[in-house]
Amino acid sequence: MDYQKIINEIAQEVTPFLKDGKVADYIPALASVDPEQFAMSVTLFDGTQYNVGYADRLFSIQSISKVFTFTLGLNIYGSSLYKRIGREPSGNPFNSLVQLEYEHGKPRNPFINAGAINVTDALISHYESEEVACEEVMEFIRSIADDNSISSNEIVSKSEMKYGHRNMALANLMKSFGNLDNEVDDVVSVYFKHCSIEMNTKMLSRAMLYLANHGVDPITGIRYVSVQRAKRINTVMLTCGHYDASGDFAFRVGLPGKSGVGGGIVVVVPKLMGISVWAPGLNTQGNSLVGTKALELFSDKTGLSIF
Amino acid sequence: MDYQKIINEIAQEVTPFLKDGKVADYIPALASVDPEQFAMSVTLFDGTQYNVGYADRLFSIQSISKVFTFTLGLNIYGSSLYKRIGREPSGNPFNSLVQLEYEHGKPRNPFINAGAINVTDALISHYESEEVACEEVMEFIRSIADDNSISSNEIVSKSEMKYGHRNMALANLMKSFGNLDNEVDDVVSVYFKHCSIEMNTKMLSRAMLYLANHGVDPITGIRYVSVQRAKRINTVMLTCGHYDASGDFAFRVGLPGKSGVGGGIVVVVPKLMGISVWAPGLNTQGNSLVGTKALELFSDKTGLSIF
Amino acid sequence: MDYQKIINEIAQEVTPFLKDGKVADYIPALASVDPEQFAMSVTLFDGTQYNVGYADRLFSIQSISKVFTFTLGLNIYGSSLYKRIGREPSGNPFNSLVQLEYEHGKPRNPFINAGAINVTDALISHYESEEVACEEVMEFIRSIADDNSISSNEIVSKSEMKYGHRNMALANLMKSFGNLDNEVDDVVSVYFKHCSIEMNTKMLSRAMLYLANHGVDPITGIRYVSVQRAKRINTVMLTCGHYDASGDFAFRVGLPGKSGVGGGIVVVVPKLMGISVWAPGLNTQGNSLVGTKALELFSDKTGLSIF
Amino acid sequence: MDYQKIINEIAQEVTPFLKDGKVADYIPALASVDPEQFAMSVTLFDGTQYNVGYADRLFSIQSISKVFTFTLGLNIYGSSLYKRIGREPSGNPFNSLVQLEYEHGKPRNPFINAGAINVTDALISHYESEEVACEEVMEFIRSIADDNSISSNEIVSKSEMKYGHRNMALANLMKSFGNLDNEVDDVVSVYFKHCSIEMNTKMLSRAMLYLANHGVDPITGIRYVSVQRAKRINTVMLTCGHYDASGDFAFRVGLPGKSGVGGGIVVVVPKLMGISVWAPGLNTQGNSLVGTKALELFSDKTGLSIF
Repeated sequence: MDYQKIINEIAQEVTPFLKDGKVADYIPALASVDPEQFAMSVTLFDGTQYNVGYADRLFSIQSISKVFTFTLGLNIYGSSLYKRIGREPSGNPFNSLVQLEYEHGKPRNPFINAGAINVTDALISHYESEEVACEEVMEFIRSIADDNSISSNEIVSKSEMKYGHRNMALANLMKSFGNLDNEVDDVVSVYFKHCSIEMNTKMLSRAMLYLANHGVDPITGIRYVSVQRAKRINTVMLTCGHYDASGDFAFRVGLPGKSGVGGGIVVVVPKLMGISVWAPGLNTQGNSLVGTKALELFSDKTGLSIF
Repeated sequence: MDYQKIINEIAQEVTPFLKDGKVADYIPALASVDPEQFAMSVTLFDGTQYNVGYADRLFSIQSISKVFTFTLGLNIYGSSLYKRIGREPSGNPFNSLVQLEYEHGKPRNPFINAGAINVTDALISHYESEEVACEEVMEFIRSIADDNSISSNEIVSKSEMKYGHRNMALANLMKSFGNLDNEVDDVVSVYFKHCSIEMNTKMLSRAMLYLANHGVDPITGIRYVSVQRAKRINTVMLTCGHYDASGDFAFRVGLPGKSGVGGGIVVVVPKLMGISVWAPGLNTQGNSLVGTKALELFSDKTGLSIF
Repeated sequence: MDYQKIINEIAQEVTPFLKDGKVADYIPALASVDPEQFAMSVTLFDGTQYNVGYADRLFSIQSISKVFTFTLGLNIYGSSLYKRIGREPSGNPFNSLVQLEYEHGKPRNPFINAGAINVTDALISHYESEEVACEEVMEFIRSIADDNSISSNEIVSKSEMKYGHRNMALANLMKSFGNLDNEVDDVVSVYFKHCSIEMNTKMLSRAMLYLANHGVDPITGIRYVSVQRAKRINTVMLTCGHYDASGDFAFRVGLPGKSGVGGGIVVVVPKLMGISVWAPGLNTQGNSLVGTKALELFSDKTGLSIF
Repeated sequence: MDYQKIINEIAQEVTPFLKDGKVADYIPALASVDPEQFAMSVTLFDGTQYNVGYADRLFSIQSISKVFTFTLGLNIYGSSLYKRIGREPSGNPFNSLVQLEYEHGKPRNPFINAGAINVTDALISHYESEEVACEEVMEFIRSIADDNSISSNEIVSKSEMKYGHRNMALANLMKSFGNLDNEVDDVVSVYFKHCSIEMNTKMLSRAMLYLANHGVDPITGIRYVSVQRAKRINTVMLTCGHYDASGDFAFRVGLPGKSGVGGGIVVVVPKLMGISVWAPGLNTQGNSLVGTKALELFSDKTGLSIF
């Protein structure tokens, strides 16, 4: 299939919608991003890459980092990680405290904020240091993206910390239920550093190959997770990857994916490719409006879907 | 792959667990079923069928009927059906009124009780008759299962009606929000007739072929739904097919499926086969305990998974 | 104190606000009431009555009937009534199902709809007949109001039944939790007959004397409830008498009271008087807008308050 | 009435129940209190005081401090305080985040934790300093109790801060909704200093006189709040003073009161007296078990009740 032609078409078709989304505005660093930008990258198992738009432009990966911390958490703790977090869709907004209180401080899944904060806490406990936990996540991402230049934006992470009262509330609530080992401020600070990592769609589509290929990077041959874990990470992406619009994303796109409020989305086509799109304008559920549309078009045009 | 050998192994491996589940006891007709029964059937696209256990024994399909009414509803109303019901996982038990009230009487998806009652209401409105709505669903099931003997058990449906106060509450709540066209009693009565249809795992695995084959029955060549709709029905099965254990089922089994409190589960392996298991003992979320385990073993042994 | 002068002043002062409320419109019989009507009556222990406005005009007492059914229920069941219903403010709208589901079908208090439906069920069980339960409530009201002409409006009660899906949902939910003895339709039907009783402010202010005088009608000398029960009914009126605006009513008026969506409110001044106001326009919480204002003025002008 | 005889009787009658309550154990300083202690004090308007039990023993007043900060907040902000907090019963546990999220960060009333934290924030904003806010509250309490020895226990307040994650969650949630002016840590720290003030039942019953006497201390003649505000503080105590057992307390005792997890309760008999009881063992709603029982007996024996 001529993927380049397909994504070129998509780039054209989505252009009229770039003005419809709303850039995340809870911190200045994100609010100032020009919403009328679009990028899409597809990376095959042999390393061939198809790009369109601003595929070199770095953006804040935000919640896409949850895929990577979940991978590390699973590798370290195995299924005992599920004592701390669940793997069910939440049926609630990404930052709701309601369900977390009803369920006694155990987050529904690793892809809502409370869940990812909890996984971060588990990483800090394992590495016995916030710095090491940060560094290990960074190294993991550099390895799967095969790019040592990737780093976290300190201005963004400090800004997140300053305005991160909702996440502080989530972390304090978990702590009050005994489901957080380390100090709240430390955990949330590391969490925000992961969220503030900057990548572009080239890097992110490349970074998805280990999940598309059931745990083994198809280019380097490095195994990052077991076959079963890779499949299960994909599963949780499908059922929980887009907050309370996960069902809708699965319905439209039919592929496992994870979005971030920076406007990025990563998607896995099992046994075939990694995909990433970027368009900073968000829909009402906090997912990239044009990014979702682009992926729906991609699924329609290629027929690629796990269903 | 030697599917017969695999399901024989599974039947042996699950036997010790048959005593662990709890048969649905809210109506006498279900409460009296012997819990220590197991059946599993696999039907390939050429009609080849592999069976183990009580694969000829009829049981109440209960919520599996939601797949069939949803298919009919989609065919009739197209995407306008989503004005009445959503397609998101609920994060709540199958019969909860909480979310339905917060979301102003619009059910989260067609596979929780409120959603299926709502679809039934839409069918009655379309056919302008409860009897015809009943009959059309029955005819559809007979057609996809290629078996004219299939019928609904009137003792069960009357018993459901007698004890169905929770479902009456759901229907009345939707009616109070203006999201139900017909009389509450009439709609719930038709809904229960669908739930009381009796089939065995042979019939049900056969009946799944139209969804596995993207809308076309691979044996008869009849197209029941469009490719895209078939994929989307599969998607909703994956994200919402097991109530508030949908994430867990997807995680363990990795295939779209739908369960019923009668102990049956249907599963689709896209482009390959239909599967059905039956074991009346339920787990705490109301899904067949041994059925889920059997499907997890099947996925492990065959490597079949959409992820 | 010159009560006649005070209520005359109040009638003048509230006139400009009569157009602000919104008449209950869920049934035609209530929707057609002219909103620009006002009445207020004060009855002292010696029978002296002060009236202003349409004090002879009959209106639907609606939820004010809950005070009377609660009195009867307490007399019959004593404190064992609290096995079925609580006595806590709900923190939720009057017809919410959310809390009722979380609390397993036990209504928070006798003055929300679920609670009053439940008390009605208890009365039917005691009298072993819907007709007798209806008649006993009617007789009780006629006795405390000392007026045999009082009756229920059948057009209203039938209309309530036709549009009463929310109340049917509440009753079915309680039934599903085993907290309703009789058939849902029968209970709700009797409940609506109580709601459809028609009285005027003269009758209602008179009817409150037994509660103001701690159980004994000060005119006839008849004891209707014990001292302690009278005090406790007053307490529940104060904490729960105005749905989710009970705190606000207590804050503004400082007296125990109960409102109905027909626009009536009854109030008790312990050891002194019964009061009733009527103004059909409701505020957003479903209580008479001008009625509440009139009572606040009365409390301010007279200094009467239990606090 | 012989109040001394009455409280002596009560002290005897409640003794067998002293072992039934459960001391608050979330911080060591409270967990180590001997549960089998009881004290009760009654102070009349002429200063006559009746005491029984450990009426000189200091204890942590905890949430009783909410009455005092609310008084100050009302005096400073008047009714504009209600832009930040409501005055409705919550229908939820004292520290629940659920309702706070649904209601967009506006606490239901000043007597649940979120509400009192919010009032503390308002005081800090007014005094432009945490220290001054602390000191003003302390001076107010010393004045109404007419006792300059009263102080806050720093060991307790630091311990509260260390284990106060639930309150930190509440404050962060309000901050995220823009309903908190100052830094979360600062506000919660001042809040805990108020909670850690130590008083005995003699002091507390004396301190209630300004509310019992509608704003004016009957002994010193100092007016602390207007008549109307005093009545309204009493109202909010009645409807919201005992968390989700406020209705039950009002039902049993029939008098406005406020409890603290230190085991203290204050009660107001309008126009007559201030009362305080202390018994550290709590019931399941977090109110003094024996304290509530003692007040119920007092109400029964004296017939004192606002209803």
